[in-house]
Amino acid sequence: MSKPDALTALGEMLGDRLSRSKSDLDLHGRNETYFPFLPPDAVAYPETTDEVAQIVRICAAHGVPLIGWGRGTSLEGHALALQGGVTIDFSRMNRVLKVNSEDMDVVVQPGLTREDLNRELRATGLFFPVDPGANASLGGMASTRASGTTAVRYGTMRDNVLALEVVLPDGRVIRTGTRARKSSAGYDLTGLFVGSEGTLGLITELTLRLHGQPEAISAAVCAFDEIGAAVDTVIQTIQLGIPMARIEFVDAATAAAFNAYASADMPEKPHLMVEFHGSAAGVAEQTESFGEVVAENGGEGFKWSSRPEDRNALWTMRHNAYYACLGLRPGATALVTDMCVPISRLAEAVEETRADIAQASIPGPILGHVGDGNFHAILLVEPDNAAELAEAKALAHRMVERALRMGGTVTGEHGIGMGKLDYMEEEHGAAWDVMGQIKRALDPMTLMNPGKMVRAN
Amino acid sequence: MSKPDALTALGEMLGDRLSRSKSDLDLHGRNETYFPFLPPDAVAYPETTDEVAQIVRICAAHGVPLIGWGRGTSLEGHALALQGGVTIDFSRMNRVLKVNSEDMDVVVQPGLTREDLNRELRATGLFFPVDPGANASLGGMASTRASGTTAVRYGTMRDNVLALEVVLPDGRVIRTGTRARKSSAGYDLTGLFVGSEGTLGLITELTLRLHGQPEAISAAVCAFDEIGAAVDTVIQTIQLGIPMARIEFVDAATAAAFNAYASADMPEKPHLMVEFHGSAAGVAEQTESFGEVVAENGGEGFKWSSRPEDRNALWTMRHNAYYACLGLRPGATALVTDMCVPISRLAEAVEETRADIAQASIPGPILGHVGDGNFHAILLVEPDNAAELAEAKALAHRMVERALRMGGTVTGEHGIGMGKLDYMEEEHGAAWDVMGQIKRALDPMTLMNPGKMVRAN
Repeated sequence: MSKPDALTALGEMLGDRLSRSKSDLDLHGRNETYFPFLPPDAVAYPETTDEVAQIVRICAAHGVPLIGWGRGTSLEGHALALQGGVTIDFSRMNRVLKVNSEDMDVVVQPGLTREDLNRELRATGLFFPVDPGANASLGGMASTRASGTTAVRYGTMRDNVLALEVVLPDGRVIRTGTRARKSSAGYDLTGLFVGSEGTLGLITELTLRLHGQPEAISAAVCAFDEIGAAVDTVIQTIQLGIPMARIEFVDAATAAAFNAYASADMPEKPHLMVEFHGSAAGVAEQTESFGEVVAENGGEGFKWSSRPEDRNALWTMRHNAYYACLGLRPGATALVTDMCVPISRLAEAVEETRADIAQASIPGPILGHVGDGNFHAILLVEPDNAAELAEAKALAHRMVERALRMGGTVTGEHGIGMGKLDYMEEEHGAAWDVMGQIKRALDPMTLMNPGKMVRAN
Repeated sequence: MSKPDALTALGEMLGDRLSRSKSDLDLHGRNETYFPFLPPDAVAYPETTDEVAQIVRICAAHGVPLIGWGRGTSLEGHALALQGGVTIDFSRMNRVLKVNSEDMDVVVQPGLTREDLNRELRATGLFFPVDPGANASLGGMASTRASGTTAVRYGTMRDNVLALEVVLPDGRVIRTGTRARKSSAGYDLTGLFVGSEGTLGLITELTLRLHGQPEAISAAVCAFDEIGAAVDTVIQTIQLGIPMARIEFVDAATAAAFNAYASADMPEKPHLMVEFHGSAAGVAEQTESFGEVVAENGGEGFKWSSRPEDRNALWTMRHNAYYACLGLRPGATALVTDMCVPISRLAEAVEETRADIAQASIPGPILGHVGDGNFHAILLVEPDNAAELAEAKALAHRMVERALRMGGTVTGEHGIGMGKLDYMEEEHGAAWDVMGQIKRALDPMTLMNPGKMVRAN
């Protein structure tokens, strides 16, 4: 039982689809944010579920860790090889296997990206709504329980994965769920693997819910003097039952970043950016009703458009917010926070966070998915400036404490990875031990993404 | 370690809230359908989570089984005491603990019924939508992952439980989830306990999502010559993005039952019963669009109404369908099936089932939640007629096989209980073993609702 023997066996099986090249190890040891370089010993590029199962059996026989890799867009260092081992890169398993239009579902491989999926769906009248911003792989999105701008209307990955095929730590292949829309047949294993961050098994196939492309879409943007008025607008809109497809908050600093990066012409104030989906008449009515709520809350500059080019410009700007914010401090890297609270506490949470950042020496624009109570601060630090990173971590720590104090969660959508492990006990208490019991039951050798998610043995 | 010692200790702790009276044992050994009488040794009526935890610790110390009991409305014998033990009746834990209007959630105890919850919510402008027909307890509904007429719009219990408090088999009390709308913080334990049928722990508190009472509601009913045309109407309506709040199918036999039971005046043909929620203009538009789809598919007698009394009459009739069908055969009892398939296979599934029942000697009206691909046959048998029960079971068996052959599930909403255990391996394959691994990890002594859900050790 040794790692070299495992790598030899994998090399015999995969040929040049087992890579130990420096460039491959470098690529798979890096991450999008501030975590250190942690490369695997090798990168495997399987093409079938059977190959994944064989890889897992070889690694299990030799006690070698296994880490899944989609597109490397995680913000929390999920796919870093803390204990070395073999990274399974799913980029060659990236096909749409079956579109079931009548049932509004699709079967895909885990390496497919959400943008590629939607490109393939364009002619069907259907689309996959979950939109975390980055063009992530669908396997990765399932593994981190991703969401994004559209969760307020269409839900998160939890709500949009119908079934999975998973290779377990001992090489068994299971199917969880069916293509039926609902089921009461046993423990919800689909839900258990969604969000498990590769620590219980490797997802090799996903059945996803699709939604009809809306007949009409309108988008709107408006400014507020105070964060509280913006959040009140959101709460009232939800309570009126106006079905928003997207509702995004950006603070004054983010508006300034948009102005600089995208030549926007926004007052440097808190803004809401909103989108409605439905019939032409429905969208017009929703937009009008929303405009009334905006006016009641003192919002200004309310503009809406159903022209695709205007909408695209708006959401492209929003999707590039991370880069726009990085542009506020050229050369900087970012620590991105991800707190999520009950919406009644959101204004207070954002205000406290803004005041805290205002005391710090580093900038930190705030933006988020306000309909879900989820927001991010993009804390901009100089690379290799330990003092600034420490300051950013202290701010992030206080955001986490704030989230928990307000009845929320330490991560709304980015996941635990390496960045939030230290908060699991505080958020979950004894329930974290239950997660450990499940982990040990399914992965007794701790081969799957070791060092993540659960308490170390 | 003995059962008598456990009962003595429980009696000392609970006083007359530990009952061993014949009437109590009788009540808790009975079920709504065809399963045998299986009483517990005692019934406990706890009033707090701490009491539940104490009861569990006493039973665990003496190896005594524990079975949760809500309102006894299960159709699959979930709460029968297969191996005796103590039934925990949650009827004294039936309070609304906190309504959070701004956050649109509510914290409740497990013994509260859905009708009582909605009565308490009436003045808030909010409601809890999951509607399985029976006035079940919310703890029981979570435990069986219940759904019903409104799942097509509002989802099932899977989608509407935000967080749980659970007493584990060793007496530890955990909280799963928070009041945040979404989270990526760890394994989805809320989702694991929802649908676990009391085999992993006892739910002692639930945080539920609420929804705004719609501004306007309209309901409609229409008849079709063929089941296929009715189902095509549903598929096209979904694909057009018309947001139905309810869409129910009843077959000709059920229409006849309504005529006899509720003095309805329905042609003895397949029908759809549908409801729309939204703004006044939105509901009018949806109803009109739906009417066009109905006309294209040859539907007839399309009538709609937004008058509350008409709607109430319609849904009262639908909710009483079980009793209306029982009325087709006075003195009969029923075996109620629960298959759920991808909607593209639904017409075929219903047709095959109807043809199969037509060959049988017993009646079996068909009705269901057609927007989810879920339907039931109510197989009417004479009590104590073994030949008829065998015939009904054979029909039910073929429905299950049909569901699996068509890519569906053996139970859309009723759960496994005693009726579907024999199909778990066929539906889940090796994934059923994974459920067993989880069960053994959390309940190594098999104290929680033993004999249910997983393979016997």
